[in-house]
Amino acid sequence: MTVGVCYFPEHWSRERWETDISQMAEAGIEYVRMGEFAWRRIEPERGTFDFAWLDEAVELIGKFGMKAVLCTPTATPPKWLVDEHPDVRQREQDGTPREWGSRRFTCFNSPTYRSETERIVSVLTDRYADNPHVAGWQTDNEFGCHETVTCYCEDCGEAFSEWLADRYESVADLNDAWGTTFWSQQYDDFESIDPPKPTPAANHPSRVLAYERFSNDSVAEYNRLHAALIREANDEWFVTHNFMGGFSLDAFRLAADLDFLSWDSYPTGFVQDRQPDTPTVDELRAGNPDQVSMNHDLQRGAKGKPFWVMEQQPGDINWPPQSPQPADGAMRLWAHHAVAHGADAVVYFRWRRCRQGQEQYHAGLRRQDGSPDRGYREASTAADELFDLDSVDASVALVHDYESLWATRSQPLSPDWDYWNHLRTYYDALRARGVQVDIVSPEATLERYDAVVAPTLYLVGDELSTALTDYVDSGGCLLLGARTGEKDPYNRLHESLAPGPLTALTGAQVARHETLPDHVETRLSYDGATYEFRTWASWLAPEVGVPRGEYRTGEAAGNTAIVRNAAGDGSVTYCGCWPGDDLADALVTELLDAAGVEYTERFPDGVRVMERDGYTWALNFTSDPVTLTVPDSTGFLLGESTVDAFDTAVLDGSIRGVGLASE
Amino acid sequence: MTVGVCYFPEHWSRERWETDISQMAEAGIEYVRMGEFAWRRIEPERGTFDFAWLDEAVELIGKFGMKAVLCTPTATPPKWLVDEHPDVRQREQDGTPREWGSRRFTCFNSPTYRSETERIVSVLTDRYADNPHVAGWQTDNEFGCHETVTCYCEDCGEAFSEWLADRYESVADLNDAWGTTFWSQQYDDFESIDPPKPTPAANHPSRVLAYERFSNDSVAEYNRLHAALIREANDEWFVTHNFMGGFSLDAFRLAADLDFLSWDSYPTGFVQDRQPDTPTVDELRAGNPDQVSMNHDLQRGAKGKPFWVMEQQPGDINWPPQSPQPADGAMRLWAHHAVAHGADAVVYFRWRRCRQGQEQYHAGLRRQDGSPDRGYREASTAADELFDLDSVDASVALVHDYESLWATRSQPLSPDWDYWNHLRTYYDALRARGVQVDIVSPEATLERYDAVVAPTLYLVGDELSTALTDYVDSGGCLLLGARTGEKDPYNRLHESLAPGPLTALTGAQVARHETLPDHVETRLSYDGATYEFRTWASWLAPEVGVPRGEYRTGEAAGNTAIVRNAAGDGSVTYCGCWPGDDLADALVTELLDAAGVEYTERFPDGVRVMERDGYTWALNFTSDPVTLTVPDSTGFLLGESTVDAFDTAVLDGSIRGVGLASE
Amino acid sequence: MTVGVCYFPEHWSRERWETDISQMAEAGIEYVRMGEFAWRRIEPERGTFDFAWLDEAVELIGKFGMKAVLCTPTATPPKWLVDEHPDVRQREQDGTPREWGSRRFTCFNSPTYRSETERIVSVLTDRYADNPHVAGWQTDNEFGCHETVTCYCEDCGEAFSEWLADRYESVADLNDAWGTTFWSQQYDDFESIDPPKPTPAANHPSRVLAYERFSNDSVAEYNRLHAALIREANDEWFVTHNFMGGFSLDAFRLAADLDFLSWDSYPTGFVQDRQPDTPTVDELRAGNPDQVSMNHDLQRGAKGKPFWVMEQQPGDINWPPQSPQPADGAMRLWAHHAVAHGADAVVYFRWRRCRQGQEQYHAGLRRQDGSPDRGYREASTAADELFDLDSVDASVALVHDYESLWATRSQPLSPDWDYWNHLRTYYDALRARGVQVDIVSPEATLERYDAVVAPTLYLVGDELSTALTDYVDSGGCLLLGARTGEKDPYNRLHESLAPGPLTALTGAQVARHETLPDHVETRLSYDGATYEFRTWASWLAPEVGVPRGEYRTGEAAGNTAIVRNAAGDGSVTYCGCWPGDDLADALVTELLDAAGVEYTERFPDGVRVMERDGYTWALNFTSDPVTLTVPDSTGFLLGESTVDAFDTAVLDGSIRGVGLASE
Ligand SMILES: [Zn+2]
Ligand SMILES: [Zn+2]
Ligand SMILES: [Zn+2]
Repeated sequence: MTVGVCYFPEHWSRERWETDISQMAEAGIEYVRMGEFAWRRIEPERGTFDFAWLDEAVELIGKFGMKAVLCTPTATPPKWLVDEHPDVRQREQDGTPREWGSRRFTCFNSPTYRSETERIVSVLTDRYADNPHVAGWQTDNEFGCHETVTCYCEDCGEAFSEWLADRYESVADLNDAWGTTFWSQQYDDFESIDPPKPTPAANHPSRVLAYERFSNDSVAEYNRLHAALIREANDEWFVTHNFMGGFSLDAFRLAADLDFLSWDSYPTGFVQDRQPDTPTVDELRAGNPDQVSMNHDLQRGAKGKPFWVMEQQPGDINWPPQSPQPADGAMRLWAHHAVAHGADAVVYFRWRRCRQGQEQYHAGLRRQDGSPDRGYREASTAADELFDLDSVDASVALVHDYESLWATRSQPLSPDWDYWNHLRTYYDALRARGVQVDIVSPEATLERYDAVVAPTLYLVGDELSTALTDYVDSGGCLLLGARTGEKDPYNRLHESLAPGPLTALTGAQVARHETLPDHVETRLSYDGATYEFRTWASWLAPEVGVPRGEYRTGEAAGNTAIVRNAAGDGSVTYCGCWPGDDLADALVTELLDAAGVEYTERFPDGVRVMERDGYTWALNFTSDPVTLTVPDSTGFLLGESTVDAFDTAVLDGSIRGVGLASE
Repeated sequence: MTVGVCYFPEHWSRERWETDISQMAEAGIEYVRMGEFAWRRIEPERGTFDFAWLDEAVELIGKFGMKAVLCTPTATPPKWLVDEHPDVRQREQDGTPREWGSRRFTCFNSPTYRSETERIVSVLTDRYADNPHVAGWQTDNEFGCHETVTCYCEDCGEAFSEWLADRYESVADLNDAWGTTFWSQQYDDFESIDPPKPTPAANHPSRVLAYERFSNDSVAEYNRLHAALIREANDEWFVTHNFMGGFSLDAFRLAADLDFLSWDSYPTGFVQDRQPDTPTVDELRAGNPDQVSMNHDLQRGAKGKPFWVMEQQPGDINWPPQSPQPADGAMRLWAHHAVAHGADAVVYFRWRRCRQGQEQYHAGLRRQDGSPDRGYREASTAADELFDLDSVDASVALVHDYESLWATRSQPLSPDWDYWNHLRTYYDALRARGVQVDIVSPEATLERYDAVVAPTLYLVGDELSTALTDYVDSGGCLLLGARTGEKDPYNRLHESLAPGPLTALTGAQVARHETLPDHVETRLSYDGATYEFRTWASWLAPEVGVPRGEYRTGEAAGNTAIVRNAAGDGSVTYCGCWPGDDLADALVTELLDAAGVEYTERFPDGVRVMERDGYTWALNFTSDPVTLTVPDSTGFLLGESTVDAFDTAVLDGSIRGVGLASE
Repeated sequence: MTVGVCYFPEHWSRERWETDISQMAEAGIEYVRMGEFAWRRIEPERGTFDFAWLDEAVELIGKFGMKAVLCTPTATPPKWLVDEHPDVRQREQDGTPREWGSRRFTCFNSPTYRSETERIVSVLTDRYADNPHVAGWQTDNEFGCHETVTCYCEDCGEAFSEWLADRYESVADLNDAWGTTFWSQQYDDFESIDPPKPTPAANHPSRVLAYERFSNDSVAEYNRLHAALIREANDEWFVTHNFMGGFSLDAFRLAADLDFLSWDSYPTGFVQDRQPDTPTVDELRAGNPDQVSMNHDLQRGAKGKPFWVMEQQPGDINWPPQSPQPADGAMRLWAHHAVAHGADAVVYFRWRRCRQGQEQYHAGLRRQDGSPDRGYREASTAADELFDLDSVDASVALVHDYESLWATRSQPLSPDWDYWNHLRTYYDALRARGVQVDIVSPEATLERYDAVVAPTLYLVGDELSTALTDYVDSGGCLLLGARTGEKDPYNRLHESLAPGPLTALTGAQVARHETLPDHVETRLSYDGATYEFRTWASWLAPEVGVPRGEYRTGEAAGNTAIVRNAAGDGSVTYCGCWPGDDLADALVTELLDAAGVEYTERFPDGVRVMERDGYTWALNFTSDPVTLTVPDSTGFLLGESTVDAFDTAVLDGSIRGVGLASE
């Protein structure tokens, strides 16, 4: 478990480098990421390369006992390249090009850009193939950031036609699968199928979903090209990519080509720009622990192994609406939090506040004048405190499906429908109970988990249906949520009512669904108590399933909301609505009980506990101290029973019996 | 009075058709609308036609004793046509094409698309010219839906020049009429006048209004082309078009070419997306009766004869922000409501929830698995309950002017100005008093009405001024509202103060006007009481008119708000502001008293009564039962004196004396 | 001190002109502005000129003893010109042209448009070179209105490259100065540098700032071309331009080419569309006096001499969200207000409400039927009451920097950061204390002021740093605000912490900064009391400076907020946050005390006093009367000690001792 930092020697004078790098080593840093935006520095004109500077930086890193992580610099091609080949630019849906001048504006399907990519990546990886100080590579940077997964250029149009031709026997099959008799949308051949462009009403949902799949495959293919060249040069190098948090690029799709996943964590930004609620003051100071760890658990779950935080927020940042100062301690807290959720390395972004360009208002561990900022001291403390650990061992999986995210996003049926936020309702309930959760794809092997929560498996075909049924038959405990099984994999309604092929498993069908705004009262009864729900309500018609919850308000009153069904050796609960937090807790604890998974008392927002490798972390993301209750036999590796504001305790023992003292 | 349904055989397997069609007949359905989006199914490649499927569907409909209503399928041309002729696409104001992939993206002025339209319509109408099961035709589908009345392509540019050349003696006349000396906007010839495009400030209002008129004329001309071919093939067929609700396409302009008008009614959607206020829970469940019936009365008023609801909401729908389930009973309630307002047929949209394409989340009478939904049972009940009736006989007209809608929309002077909503203030007041209202154009013959309300006749020339004056002179009672007579028909201010040529009739002029945000207090006195008003205030300077209302707040205090003038044998009241509901009631009842028109007590929101052909309907659009008081002599054809939530009563007698029992 | 009016003879029949012009003279009007949009009237086709009408209008103005102010008509070229040369149109960032049809859509850098401009301006100025009735000229109209300072056409692209080539020794120097190693943004030559266009993330801030400077220089160059031709024709004419209020076009940059500045004042509009808070009812009626006078003081400060209000609101106006009627008296109040702040002339816009085109809902002094509106009577009263005065003598300067406005606007770090609004906090505090303030550029000579307030000198290089230091050294009292000295003139962070080169002067550095939303508590202590602040907080690390204010809330608690430093013979106070109104008052009065500048008691919002040339004005912008306390020796030139709602008093004496009687 280690700490790293992102460094841009090209932003600073060569005279400064040794000082900088020695200060990194002093702080206990082990990895230095470099080169991700340096193409023009490396190749100032076509075919003329300048590696001296990078050679020297790598050498210095080695000299101080650290390792370099290099990046393919393809997120920012030089201007001369784009001026020579303007066709490499992506295009918006209305045809406007995405211009040079920031980053990630190039097309994943451009043959020109792919060949330019191969050229620069080959030169770079050849150069460092035998360098002992380079540990591995990051491909490109944050694929899809600034909403660039999809492009609507001509190259993409052609590639889309080919992609479809590879996936359907004939265009007649495609017409059948999509259902193009609706609004005269039959295609005559693959060539004439183009990207969905602006049209008065919505585009065909099957076409839109296909374009999302194609676009994500294009990114994966583009990433594969990097990975292959890197491995070709030196197959001992690791290959990773730095994903974004709360994002719609399909990380599962790229995972096979990477040795491990990594991601970029900015807690005080995420609470401002990718959660629907106004952030609390504590969240502005340290983020929301569940929002952050959901991403940790996804990066870990995607490969079933430890991940890296490739960029960790070091202080104030420039891109959210507001730039609050993180709490004292937050930069250290985040490192412990990541490790407790399975990170092997936490790499702070960046070494030093940059004086120039778009990110001048993004802090570094050190300030622009070179002096240490709070982040430097906290990173250094964290480096000191972290210790080596085995992998996280989760007995619960949460199934997340990017395709269901894309598909429900294009047919939300309510401005309040939000795939991630709905998923968070279940995830947060599990985390409040101290449970470690692997976030996995629908293709994952579920048998290794005692319990599985699948909040929105919207697109369900026979294969997935069989997998879920097998899981339950063989004793698994499954909890399904709203909008399950509404569609087939082509984004059509099943001919049978939802949940389509899962009807037998759930023992119920959806008689009717509705969405409601927040100002309408929505309550249901479950297990003798009354609970709130929101936004979505499917009215269930139980067949063999046992009604467990019943709507109590509005037109829905009297209809079944939640049904439970025993199947084979296991059981499945199907909740037709978006539960409130209390109902989510009730559903999740019932599931854990059924599965025999241990859990803690219900921790309040902002206070979280989790176990890794026999140790237990108690993390306080709030500005009020909390006091733990701990079994007598358990000692503290770090901290003590009172955990201060934004502080951390590490217990030398399992999570069992850890709780909060009542006030 | 009958019930119909919209059916898309092309979405379902041929094996299913007979089952579907027999179930329609069982429900009491008499009309089946088909073919509106089926061009590609009919003509899979240029010149190759496949009619077998449609022949068979029509035959089955006949076999089960029903009639087919066919549609020209021009809202959705096949992709091969658009790929061959990309010039048929409309263009946005900034030049972006409206692409194939949804519907209604083709230009009304494209010579290519007009000739393609003639081709397909001729083939289709020839095919069914002698078919005994086809009752008539719908032209295209919802002209102008998704804001497509106006197009900015080159074909439209040329057609606009010609349209102007037809309407002005010379370009000098046009320059004079529009007043183009403002900002150096004189034109040199008709050819150089193009559609209003993006320019830093607003475009010239006379040019903008001319473009709206031209665009609406283009739609009318395009519709005429369909109607002529249909009639040429079989002149016993009826020709109609399905308009949208609360819409800006000029229905009056198309009316002459149609045998009757029809429209598409989606009550739970309209309360969400075309009313400024947040819908109440009851409105989410059944819509707002006045919003719906205003459209009924407009479709009826436009031709002075019964209309159809060509699409009636069957259950939950996909396109509003939220998709609540309609109340139990709402689907039946809407059918009675339409009939009470003069509908001859109510055609539910659609038969069965569609599994594919953009409208999967739009309910049908039956669910996607073929099983009946609530809509099926309610439509069937309605079919059973409806009976034949004479036309509605309205003694009050409400004058609605699309051109004033367009013109005030482009110069609203307040974000709160909303032509429809202002019109609704008067309309709702009349409806709360049980009065049947014909909504008519400014060209309508007013003499047949005892009272006329004209909320916003903004554009007033000599002709209209004379018509209104004649009406009052001959004993008519007229109520005029805010912004009356501000402009001449070219969208210029009159040289005299508002209401320009109506000054003599109203006996008052507008000394000054203002708009105010809601947070400013706005009250006036009228007839001894104090009332609220909103948004707009014209300060009237009475000449021969008698001041009847006076502003009591703000800068306006002391100025006249409402003036009354006797003229000839009649009288006119001119209200210079947008009245609150209570003031609207006071104004309207005074008008009805003056005109000797009977009216009921003032019914609360959501409860409405109306008379047709000697029968009286009492409809409850709320979730609370209400109890009627009814003259002893009046019996119930349907229901009883207590009308349940979302229920209907039909009385065998006139509306006189019908009221609500106090609680 | 005089009154004028804007007149458009081309909108009215020739028969009317003499009546109109005689009525102007009757009202006491001395100047009549004409011709600003009349190009097509003057040149109906290329090379054919019609001056008869304008000759006659000028002659009539002379006949009635008034002077004409003519305008170059280049804001609205004729359609024939634009059809001939479509390249004169500006383009949006995405390439969409700004079309003919309103105004100010032509490119300042178009060689074609420059040559057309020279042609029409030469012809016009030659025509009137010897006309005794023409007093001077206005160039074009409201440069940059409707956000047209920046254009993204090809001509601009080329001109930008040349502009850069003129300012940097080499492209390498530019790369160094901007810091283009960030995200591989190095340029290869000047030719390849284009305007910042749409790119997925933000554009490089140094490039964006350079483009703002270039665009403003382009306007200045274009204005210079007018001014030169006007002076060439008759060097006794004055040359001015009518700027807009609260605007980002750099008035200082154009000032050198103008004899005096003028601006267009619309108080009831500005409170609605360029202040963040919802306007109060009083503001809707008469505007906010500080918002208006800040513009007066800027126009005066830019040249250090009296200015004109070239367009003064005459009544209700069309372009803000709402069109309230101004209060009775407001049109007169605004004239006195302007004069008290240093105006020499107040020109009402316009003579008569226009019947045609885009501004029909913009009042004139007279109504569309020619009858007088309230504005006519109030303008006439004002004309009667105004008397000649020497210049305003301000002992306090407020430094305003357009470049800092542009730069902070592109990196606001908070949706609540608003350069103008922040500046207003200090300005309003000074005005509430009756202080006259020159608003000056950073290049101004500060030595003539006893005290200087510089709310946001964001871009600070050595020159400015030296100037400020010299000012303080020589005894000046300086107050600096939030975001001071964060950047160098190329929009890069200084290598030292903020305030960069001002560190020695302030005796403190910024250890850290943050922005916070309004829902977070933000308080500080200063001089024994607690105050509120908002949005921005720099945490200061005092070195030799004396801590004077300390944050008391949140993460900032305990850090220094305000520091004071003695330097040479003067002193400087540096406030790191955006103060609340009470704190601004405390800071400003401390500054005035230190500088020995007299000030009044703190007047409430909407009541303002100010002195010019030994007279004192007391203006009441509220709907409640106020009562003044005045030294016994001071008499009233106008009004009396009770100043009615929206009324004015003028005292024959200095401001000393003027206050409000307590209620
Ligand atoms: Zn592409
Ligand atoms: Zn068109
Ligand atoms: Zn330009």
